[in-house]
Amino acid sequence: MSQYVLKIDCQDEKGLIYRVADAVFKYKLNIIKNDEFVDREHSKFFMRAELSGEINTKEFLGTLEAMLPSGANIYIASKAKKNIVLMGTKESHVLGDILLKHYRNELNANILAVVSNYDELKPLADKFDIPFFHISHDDITREEHENKILALLETLKPDFIVLAKYMRILSSGFVKNYQGRVLNIHHSFLPAFIGANPYKQAYERGVKIIGATAHFVNDNLDEGPIIAQDVITVNHEFDWKEMQRAGRNVEKVVLSTALDLVLEDRIFVYKNKTVIF
Amino acid sequence: MSQYVLKIDCQDEKGLIYRVADAVFKYKLNIIKNDEFVDREHSKFFMRAELSGEINTKEFLGTLEAMLPSGANIYIASKAKKNIVLMGTKESHVLGDILLKHYRNELNANILAVVSNYDELKPLADKFDIPFFHISHDDITREEHENKILALLETLKPDFIVLAKYMRILSSGFVKNYQGRVLNIHHSFLPAFIGANPYKQAYERGVKIIGATAHFVNDNLDEGPIIAQDVITVNHEFDWKEMQRAGRNVEKVVLSTALDLVLEDRIFVYKNKTVIF
Amino acid sequence: MSQYVLKIDCQDEKGLIYRVADAVFKYKLNIIKNDEFVDREHSKFFMRAELSGEINTKEFLGTLEAMLPSGANIYIASKAKKNIVLMGTKESHVLGDILLKHYRNELNANILAVVSNYDELKPLADKFDIPFFHISHDDITREEHENKILALLETLKPDFIVLAKYMRILSSGFVKNYQGRVLNIHHSFLPAFIGANPYKQAYERGVKIIGATAHFVNDNLDEGPIIAQDVITVNHEFDWKEMQRAGRNVEKVVLSTALDLVLEDRIFVYKNKTVIF
Amino acid sequence: MSQYVLKIDCQDEKGLIYRVADAVFKYKLNIIKNDEFVDREHSKFFMRAELSGEINTKEFLGTLEAMLPSGANIYIASKAKKNIVLMGTKESHVLGDILLKHYRNELNANILAVVSNYDELKPLADKFDIPFFHISHDDITREEHENKILALLETLKPDFIVLAKYMRILSSGFVKNYQGRVLNIHHSFLPAFIGANPYKQAYERGVKIIGATAHFVNDNLDEGPIIAQDVITVNHEFDWKEMQRAGRNVEKVVLSTALDLVLEDRIFVYKNKTVIF
Repeated sequence: MSQYVLKIDCQDEKGLIYRVADAVFKYKLNIIKNDEFVDREHSKFFMRAELSGEINTKEFLGTLEAMLPSGANIYIASKAKKNIVLMGTKESHVLGDILLKHYRNELNANILAVVSNYDELKPLADKFDIPFFHISHDDITREEHENKILALLETLKPDFIVLAKYMRILSSGFVKNYQGRVLNIHHSFLPAFIGANPYKQAYERGVKIIGATAHFVNDNLDEGPIIAQDVITVNHEFDWKEMQRAGRNVEKVVLSTALDLVLEDRIFVYKNKTVIF
Repeated sequence: MSQYVLKIDCQDEKGLIYRVADAVFKYKLNIIKNDEFVDREHSKFFMRAELSGEINTKEFLGTLEAMLPSGANIYIASKAKKNIVLMGTKESHVLGDILLKHYRNELNANILAVVSNYDELKPLADKFDIPFFHISHDDITREEHENKILALLETLKPDFIVLAKYMRILSSGFVKNYQGRVLNIHHSFLPAFIGANPYKQAYERGVKIIGATAHFVNDNLDEGPIIAQDVITVNHEFDWKEMQRAGRNVEKVVLSTALDLVLEDRIFVYKNKTVIF
Repeated sequence: MSQYVLKIDCQDEKGLIYRVADAVFKYKLNIIKNDEFVDREHSKFFMRAELSGEINTKEFLGTLEAMLPSGANIYIASKAKKNIVLMGTKESHVLGDILLKHYRNELNANILAVVSNYDELKPLADKFDIPFFHISHDDITREEHENKILALLETLKPDFIVLAKYMRILSSGFVKNYQGRVLNIHHSFLPAFIGANPYKQAYERGVKIIGATAHFVNDNLDEGPIIAQDVITVNHEFDWKEMQRAGRNVEKVVLSTALDLVLEDRIFVYKNKTVIF
Repeated sequence: MSQYVLKIDCQDEKGLIYRVADAVFKYKLNIIKNDEFVDREHSKFFMRAELSGEINTKEFLGTLEAMLPSGANIYIASKAKKNIVLMGTKESHVLGDILLKHYRNELNANILAVVSNYDELKPLADKFDIPFFHISHDDITREEHENKILALLETLKPDFIVLAKYMRILSSGFVKNYQGRVLNIHHSFLPAFIGANPYKQAYERGVKIIGATAHFVNDNLDEGPIIAQDVITVNHEFDWKEMQRAGRNVEKVVLSTALDLVLEDRIFVYKNKTVIF
């Protein structure tokens, strides 16, 4: 039997669960896992189900569209590996963690390539037999640099782009091409310490806890929808480099957690926030 | 409009959500919140819904019973304050925290009484105008002592009994009378350090994290279904009294969290575990 | 034997520990606990020791001054309860937690009074026999209001003022009178969500973790030296009122933790940060 | 200038800090970092200092021995990379994490070899150019197997042996050879769930938090001195395999943290516990 993920979000109204359950029942699907949430402030209904059975997804989609409110977003897909591209700069702890997870067969994704503005990460990508593309930003404009990357991405056709400590800001022009499909790890507990060198900012401010935030990238730096966050405690003995060192474990774990959620189609983005089942 | 909580657990089979959603729809109820879970290992279905509308609950129950598998547990109740009795011994941090929360009108319960085997807690109960019953265990057998408490409880008729650091073991005879209705806070991260003075045990073992566990009480000491747990870090500078001191905040927060879950009918007990929505 | 706390901070140079240890030895003091830290970036030395013995503190201070670099801050005091004043507005969870801790004899302080701009907290202060002063801000200027409070504080002579959810901003004029002696709990993970209604801000931003921060108050709102922070996880099911509800436990635990550190003379303030032993 | 780590533990008595500070001063050493702790229950003094300067360590040791109580343990060593051997079985997440950290030059150690009772980990060790030794336990006794490993270790001469999910119990005979030098990661929050398949045990018990524990190995399974622990929350949706999956991040982070503490000579073992500066 095949396995499917069904995601629905639409204006809330009475009987939605009944209607979807009715369709699921008629198509003889088993519900393996089912989650719902209603944002009562905005009267918005969210539902995600893992289903097993054998269906014509197009036909099933048609059935659902006919019974749900107009404007409903309906997504149905058989469970399968997504294709992802990893982007990095020089630091290898987050990238390496993802490569290892992929190597252990625990990442529900095919890694199409590692793309970087430097070549420091090439030996690591090579070790794991992942194609590495060095696209230097030297002597070209930001736009030219991004266009080169976009051209490459067009040939690779990834479902998601994962910024594994890619340390250049992406222009909104770039992001527009991959709306809701670019995932980033920011090395602070957002919205604290937006921008450059958050560990130094955290050190200067004298915080007692530092963290990391995985989020989708949108037009504004570090302001996209948050997927996952975690923290660790620090104290006066940590200078900013020690915070940075300690923070590496949090960064890689948070991005890894967020990436799993993305790859399992567990996230809805709504009003710059995420609903996660 | 009235608000209800519906809880169902039964053997899993196809179409359960459809059937319940159908009944909810026909009774013109709004679904405010809905959660489901299937324990696939045991083919067991759990569902909890918060509903609003106006129904004859007995009639609605009959409708559900007719459409659900035989042996299904169905619970429907209008949202209302539960009646609880608090039991303590000498330590007042957990008891005081509950009394304060009740005083602030943030506890969804009426506190019928504080019962204790000592009288140290009387002044605190008095401050908050809660009836205090001192039932000493001096010069009587355990059975006689428990019978006195049971006699009092029979007149008070609590929905739940909350052991707020009640430091005597309750016999299985006692517990049988209030199956699934006695809540305890154990001052360790169970199942580590079952039994007496867990902080001393933790200190002797040299752990780096200590915790607290709220659980339902069953026949075996500290082995009932776990509701909530939390931890804090410690280090070599903590002797067991300092662990105890630091642990007090965890104890009161964990019991408070668990008590809210109980009072909101959010817990299913199953195979000595809890399913919590 | 008496117990003392010794705190020293000064320019770092070779032999400081030797010199202090020499003095301690000559005065026949026992070192119960000793901590040092050097901020290497600023070449600053911090030391705190708990000592037991019998000394003339003035004489001991003179000995230390003679052997330490000029400009050294030296503090020596026998361990004793501090006098504190609690200030609140309407919310009682933080205030109540401190009153309960004091009632249990676990707070190393005398509570001189509760001061509030409203009278909602009076019944709670009364329960615990703590003098309550209602100083309304109605129909008077901020300055007049603060002057009334200052006048009261002058008669009470507290060592520390604890803002237990006091919801008015204190002017820098007010704070100047109690530099490093006003402790506040802010209901967010600072520096995220400075200012009004941080839970609403956190909800709008869609964070997955919320927190609380205890800090000393300085001229700028929520920008004083941080003493303690803690967090809890939230998800899309939390609206801002549920965040607020869940956050109460963190707020009271964080302030309680910070207050203990203050009362035990464990904190140095330096460059708007804290060194805590 | 050279950097040294000095560690002292001995019976506590007056003037110890003075005497050590005196020696440090006379040898014209700078104290970079200094920590002390007195276990008052057992009147035991612990001290660790990071020093810079130029000394004859043997001579300095002699000076210290002459001034400290008889029976004092004194350790002085220049800061240098330790030599370690990693042992694993089939799971690669912990091993891979250490190899990556070593590759990034963030591990203060030389990895001499990976030793395993299976050959699954060979390709991973190969990627990072670490010698791999497959010592199968097939068709030989436990003693014969351990003797083969011991023979190999004798040629490698590691300072520490790191069990990176090595899934065979080491006999006390084996451990005796490397007392206090074998580090293990146990995939539970010890002392909960000692022994085989702790995730299954945790699942059966219905805990709401799971964890991992890094500890030194002694004669009794999972009962050695604890170095580091951490936890994550789980709920009823986690079956034991999902707990195992989620636990992998904790396991690798906890072992990595503990290994850093070991490599920086920051740990004292005492009464089956650790004092860590």
